[in-house]
Amino acid sequence: MPARRLDGVACATRIREALAPRIGAFTTRHGRPPGLGVVLAGQNPASEVYVRNKIKTVGAAQCRGELFRLDASASLDDALGLVQRLNADDTIDGILVQSPLPEGMGADAEQRVFDAIDPAKDVDGFHPYNVGLLVQKRPALVACTPLGCIELLEQEQIPLRGKHAVVIGRSDLVGKPMAMLLLHENATVTICHSRTKDLASVTQNADILVAAIGRAGFVRGEHIGEGATVIDVGINNVSDKEFARELFAKDDIEKRFAAIDKRGFTLVGDVNPKEAMERAANFTPVPGGVGLLTVAMLMKNTVKAAKMRRGISNAAAI
Amino acid sequence: MPARRLDGVACATRIREALAPRIGAFTTRHGRPPGLGVVLAGQNPASEVYVRNKIKTVGAAQCRGELFRLDASASLDDALGLVQRLNADDTIDGILVQSPLPEGMGADAEQRVFDAIDPAKDVDGFHPYNVGLLVQKRPALVACTPLGCIELLEQEQIPLRGKHAVVIGRSDLVGKPMAMLLLHENATVTICHSRTKDLASVTQNADILVAAIGRAGFVRGEHIGEGATVIDVGINNVSDKEFARELFAKDDIEKRFAAIDKRGFTLVGDVNPKEAMERAANFTPVPGGVGLLTVAMLMKNTVKAAKMRRGISNAAAI
Repeated sequence: MPARRLDGVACATRIREALAPRIGAFTTRHGRPPGLGVVLAGQNPASEVYVRNKIKTVGAAQCRGELFRLDASASLDDALGLVQRLNADDTIDGILVQSPLPEGMGADAEQRVFDAIDPAKDVDGFHPYNVGLLVQKRPALVACTPLGCIELLEQEQIPLRGKHAVVIGRSDLVGKPMAMLLLHENATVTICHSRTKDLASVTQNADILVAAIGRAGFVRGEHIGEGATVIDVGINNVSDKEFARELFAKDDIEKRFAAIDKRGFTLVGDVNPKEAMERAANFTPVPGGVGLLTVAMLMKNTVKAAKMRRGISNAAAI
Repeated sequence: MPARRLDGVACATRIREALAPRIGAFTTRHGRPPGLGVVLAGQNPASEVYVRNKIKTVGAAQCRGELFRLDASASLDDALGLVQRLNADDTIDGILVQSPLPEGMGADAEQRVFDAIDPAKDVDGFHPYNVGLLVQKRPALVACTPLGCIELLEQEQIPLRGKHAVVIGRSDLVGKPMAMLLLHENATVTICHSRTKDLASVTQNADILVAAIGRAGFVRGEHIGEGATVIDVGINNVSDKEFARELFAKDDIEKRFAAIDKRGFTLVGDVNPKEAMERAANFTPVPGGVGLLTVAMLMKNTVKAAKMRRGISNAAAI
């Protein structure tokens, strides 16, 4: 029996629907909607798409999303100054600085700019103070993508308590916060990475397998235990048709070839979807899986930040 | 072949010897030694012993250890005020608040007092800011016990890269920072806890097994894979001779019985030492294993904090 597809689109819709009355109540009470400030420096085309998508989604949910641009030639001090201004702006509840920053700002620019964001407005959950609060299982702003994965698992009623969860990848963005969230849900958690020996022997034992490594179709059938739930966090471009044939099942391949012909590429996660569908019990498709949840959780974090900043007591539970 | 005993006493000695010239150089340069302020509230007898031991060890290493006492009837505000005073005192480089605080200070007193410590002086590594920096693999003050375990593994030249490390216990004090440090050493890391199902099946795969749960002799032979290195973080009192007979080998039992007769108890870790000696390749005894390393690392953290506060560039590497 092929795996059940976990529907990220439906999950994101439910998140938005649950947020709508809270956003309305906040706006009525405070005379303005929750506000997200997005900083975009330079003209990276992929960043333009991400940022536009984030602001559009936030706006569609009756929040305020505002773009703050910096020239590609802007200095690190310009970026830090803008962040300080947004920190001080009471109508801005959440601040997101789009990566990457222009190279001219220096090698450690991102860390310095992320560190400068007021932790109370750090809707990406990148600030070490928020990371520490997460580890200590205290109210915190937590990275959106792992938060979205947990939300999806909960909505799909996939039990985590006592289960063995294996995370492939140890990034600050996904792998490490994902491991912490799974631990807080009482899963036994293993973190694998590029130095892990005999990866398949570890991942085969996973009830929940999360792939977050950024390598197209890297996780194969041999890595997946029978009956596992596979969460595919990766979003990669594939333009080679021979490779696509390895990745996609017969009922999917024509559509993928059409995408390659038209746009030059098709999207695939870090998991080989053809093999995952054969082995797993549950699987998140790409696109249509985790991707949309990241933006939905960004909105949820913005509302949470807006409430926490005003000391609304149930904000942490939102 | 019985396990090799990993010698915590020798390791702690080497740590102190390596620190001595650095402490001397700091004192010459700044006209005063690195300073540790220890806050003790109330008269908990165990705390008195711990604190005396810490201050004595620090003093013996030519650092300054100073005790700051609060009455058992002191308020939370008294404790917070004292921490603020130590934060502002330039001759104090590290601040340690001994747990537990008196019950009268309230249920969340410890968290509030720990949070009040300047992260730059947080030699216990409990502040969320330091926890976040640790997760992000940035220079940080890190909890002393897991730091000591890593130091012991390094000194004993037990490889971690690519090895499977399993941590039993997920406390903020040991389990979680231990997992992060092992991950940074490129181990594949699994965190087990009270909700883990079929614990032995997970721990048997460990090349490195760290027990930090606080239950006397909980880890048995069946939990230990052949050739594993077992790090026993627990320190528990055993007063029952029948139980002692299960825990200690023949060549050890008379000494243990004598201790029970004399003091009313003998010390055992979270691992059954008799069975660990039969199964493991390397094993940390209790006492004489990890225990002494915690205080040695406290001293190392104090020197590190003293140097970091002055922006001495190689302080993070100390």
